[in-house]
Amino acid sequence: MLVVGSIALDTIITPKEKHADLLGGSASYAALSASFFTPVNLVGVVGTDFPKKYLELFQKHRIDITGLKTEQGETFRWTGQYEINMNNRTTLSVALNVFEKFSPELPSSYRATPYVLLANIHPALQLHVLDQIQSPRFVVADTMDLWINIASEDLKKVLKRVDMLILNDSEAKEFMKEDNLIKAGHKLMEMGPKYVAIKKGEHGCLLFGPEGRFFSAPAYPLKQVNDPTGAGDTFAGALLGYVASTQDASFENLRRGVVNGSVMASYNVEEFSLRRLKELQPSDIKSRFEEFKQYSHFA
Amino acid sequence: MLVVGSIALDTIITPKEKHADLLGGSASYAALSASFFTPVNLVGVVGTDFPKKYLELFQKHRIDITGLKTEQGETFRWTGQYEINMNNRTTLSVALNVFEKFSPELPSSYRATPYVLLANIHPALQLHVLDQIQSPRFVVADTMDLWINIASEDLKKVLKRVDMLILNDSEAKEFMKEDNLIKAGHKLMEMGPKYVAIKKGEHGCLLFGPEGRFFSAPAYPLKQVNDPTGAGDTFAGALLGYVASTQDASFENLRRGVVNGSVMASYNVEEFSLRRLKELQPSDIKSRFEEFKQYSHFA
Repeated sequence: MLVVGSIALDTIITPKEKHADLLGGSASYAALSASFFTPVNLVGVVGTDFPKKYLELFQKHRIDITGLKTEQGETFRWTGQYEINMNNRTTLSVALNVFEKFSPELPSSYRATPYVLLANIHPALQLHVLDQIQSPRFVVADTMDLWINIASEDLKKVLKRVDMLILNDSEAKEFMKEDNLIKAGHKLMEMGPKYVAIKKGEHGCLLFGPEGRFFSAPAYPLKQVNDPTGAGDTFAGALLGYVASTQDASFENLRRGVVNGSVMASYNVEEFSLRRLKELQPSDIKSRFEEFKQYSHFA
Repeated sequence: MLVVGSIALDTIITPKEKHADLLGGSASYAALSASFFTPVNLVGVVGTDFPKKYLELFQKHRIDITGLKTEQGETFRWTGQYEINMNNRTTLSVALNVFEKFSPELPSSYRATPYVLLANIHPALQLHVLDQIQSPRFVVADTMDLWINIASEDLKKVLKRVDMLILNDSEAKEFMKEDNLIKAGHKLMEMGPKYVAIKKGEHGCLLFGPEGRFFSAPAYPLKQVNDPTGAGDTFAGALLGYVASTQDASFENLRRGVVNGSVMASYNVEEFSLRRLKELQPSDIKSRFEEFKQYSHFA
């Protein structure tokens, strides 16, 4: 599976804690999350200040970093602050640094990767990746409100060329100018993707597919969220990682992908940065998947 | 099953339509909804202006109206207006009329009804009902923000004496001063009820039970809501109606009760007042229950 996105050093402030120089960025979360299901080819850029320990973390999780470039300069840095209600976040500072001129180039060894995750980056960069891949089996694009606001034409081009779009509920409503999420999901499918996953945070996730196919996944009942950063990227990485590992993109299997995405995202928000994910064992994933079954089952 | 609550004549204004003199009130919705599962004993009060056709509607649905008093004066009237986003509603006028002095008195034939729904009315009235019932098997109380704000001490007394509390997400957060719904659900159980159901509208419903039991039900994917009035009452009526019909209040069966409640509520909001419910066939309920299964299933 191929993961293309941002790699950052984050400073995250919550009402309780502050941590600096954390491993962050959409590709870091997505790749590490996916790596629990399938081998990952990573494409991204970091600066010369990027800690060696983070490169080692990727390698330890069988993430191929042939496509990870180190450029002269500093790594992309982001500082965000969460309110007591962790759904509300303010960006305090962004320094794009080497990421400003990032143009994802796929090593030749990556070009035939069958499963492709265009993690959350500018849709123009996502298009550039699509131009380089060879007959992929399944392509997923993640996006965010920023691109809906400033690059919607490029985003619409992406939608015509991917199998699945992932975005959150407020983004779906905003993008489609539609207050009803079910209608918004259907409108998004009309723009190209065969499948649309709408993330709803504490309310779970909706998956839309062709011919009225529909799946509603619950959220894991967490009493405490310590750092929501990267939850969406973690979700997307695990979803496609699971699909890649099973080589099955049927709607039935995408449901299980959504649940595995929800499992990984629920672990991710328990601790800052990738701290919880990197300690995770396959048995943890399996047991929480079973809990999801228990929590949503009726017959 | 016993249903005690309000019976009203509603005027409802939505961005598209306005209808006056509709059958409304918590007991009307709850009783009609429950009647699809089990015989209902209704307790309430109406005025001499109450249309005969509505009494006939109750009787047609095997609702016993021995406990429905007709007092000199007008029936409780309520006028509400919905915004384009139907989650937002303004009460334009309330005339309590005969409901102002309502004191629910149970006919002796009702006192041993095994399943009791205290639909949404002042908690002091709910307590008065609790004083009259004889060794019930399962008692459910529904409530709303108004009582949390003006009658929280009475409401707390109710909680000590019922098996299940039903309320919506914003009410649970407000009542427990807790932004995390999972924590709010657990705090509510500490106040007395063995089970707590938190309704989340378009996001479905959470059910909490003892020893960490938890169930998350999806919402039915509706593209259009025409009148949300009474959705919560309809939900509560069907939930307990199903439990009464099966005589099984195990957590496994309460899950099915929650889904039946969601099925009935999803039909109810399709049309104004009780128009959709009164035309419903048992096969409609069964087929939508199966759709809920399909939409939330993964294995």
